[in-house]
Amino acid sequence: MNALDRLITLFSKLPGIGKKSAGRIVYHILDNNPVLAVSLSKELSGLHQAIIRCSVCGGFTEADPCTVCSDPSRDHSIICVVECAQDVRVIEETREFPGVYHVLGGLIAPLEGISPANLTIDKLIKRLCGTGGVKELILALNPTIEGDTTALYLQKILKDHPVEISRLASGMPVGGNIEYIDKLTLSRSFRGRVRV
Amino acid sequence: MNALDRLITLFSKLPGIGKKSAGRIVYHILDNNPVLAVSLSKELSGLHQAIIRCSVCGGFTEADPCTVCSDPSRDHSIICVVECAQDVRVIEETREFPGVYHVLGGLIAPLEGISPANLTIDKLIKRLCGTGGVKELILALNPTIEGDTTALYLQKILKDHPVEISRLASGMPVGGNIEYIDKLTLSRSFRGRVRV
Repeated sequence: MNALDRLITLFSKLPGIGKKSAGRIVYHILDNNPVLAVSLSKELSGLHQAIIRCSVCGGFTEADPCTVCSDPSRDHSIICVVECAQDVRVIEETREFPGVYHVLGGLIAPLEGISPANLTIDKLIKRLCGTGGVKELILALNPTIEGDTTALYLQKILKDHPVEISRLASGMPVGGNIEYIDKLTLSRSFRGRVRV
Repeated sequence: MNALDRLITLFSKLPGIGKKSAGRIVYHILDNNPVLAVSLSKELSGLHQAIIRCSVCGGFTEADPCTVCSDPSRDHSIICVVECAQDVRVIEETREFPGVYHVLGGLIAPLEGISPANLTIDKLIKRLCGTGGVKELILALNPTIEGDTTALYLQKILKDHPVEISRLASGMPVGGNIEYIDKLTLSRSFRGRVRV
């Protein structure tokens, strides 16, 4: 197996990249001047040293605590609970959320062997019990079986805490077409209808 | 811009990878143990040193001449002319072609400023005039305007050479459906129909 095949195999291990796309990518890198290959190589080799987990929220950051957790202008009384660090990035891009985050590190999935103990739920409870004065918890979890299970579990174990818990609205995506929407989403849109 | 954003920007420069996929890939690499990042980094840094162009066919190889060109069991009297080095790989995977290759390094595209002089056409003519005894030239070029133009150009300048020139069959893909095939492909299938 030569250098080319080895690199194609490595690239095809990345999410969303099959054998064909990996080939296309590696040939593209080879066809170009070596600057791209060298920069990619440099950034990859330093990645795990440069990016650590924030000790407060669990998101990825260069400095601990992260820019969100250490920002005094953010509303530290609202915590948005997300599945993974990438979700923080996606939500930050909407510039819609003024609060801080908590990364669970997964969703409860008994079939995959992920139980509540594998997630950062105790850390979340510690944050709620701490001196932060947390008033609201927004569960920004996927509307899937795992997301629903995790949301229900959190609601249950937090029912004695004086904190308001909400979950992101689920329904038809903007620009969607009622004709093509699946039944589950449509019935959820009915149940979650809002007064205008 | 931190290390994470820099790597996402670099990944999104690769073909077929948008900003979103790049994010997903980088977070996947971060979530995993550093072995993947380190191997990728190592292979990328050595890629342009390890892989060179074959001085005979122009394909990518670790040793010059490449394994195909230096293989005495291949039929050196048939040359398959391809656009780029990746096409060699794709054709080799079919195990259908017993001859050798010639990589043009592109297709004639006047609008993009690619003229015959930018391709390895003189090198191809030298191979035909050499002592190799080349009998057949198979033009494995895309059935696009650029591919057609390049094929026509090659036919024209090689018309005095005693070499048989053919082009890959163009028509309906295997498993295709006449109902959904575009008109151009369908009419080409009619013109290129084969006696059964």
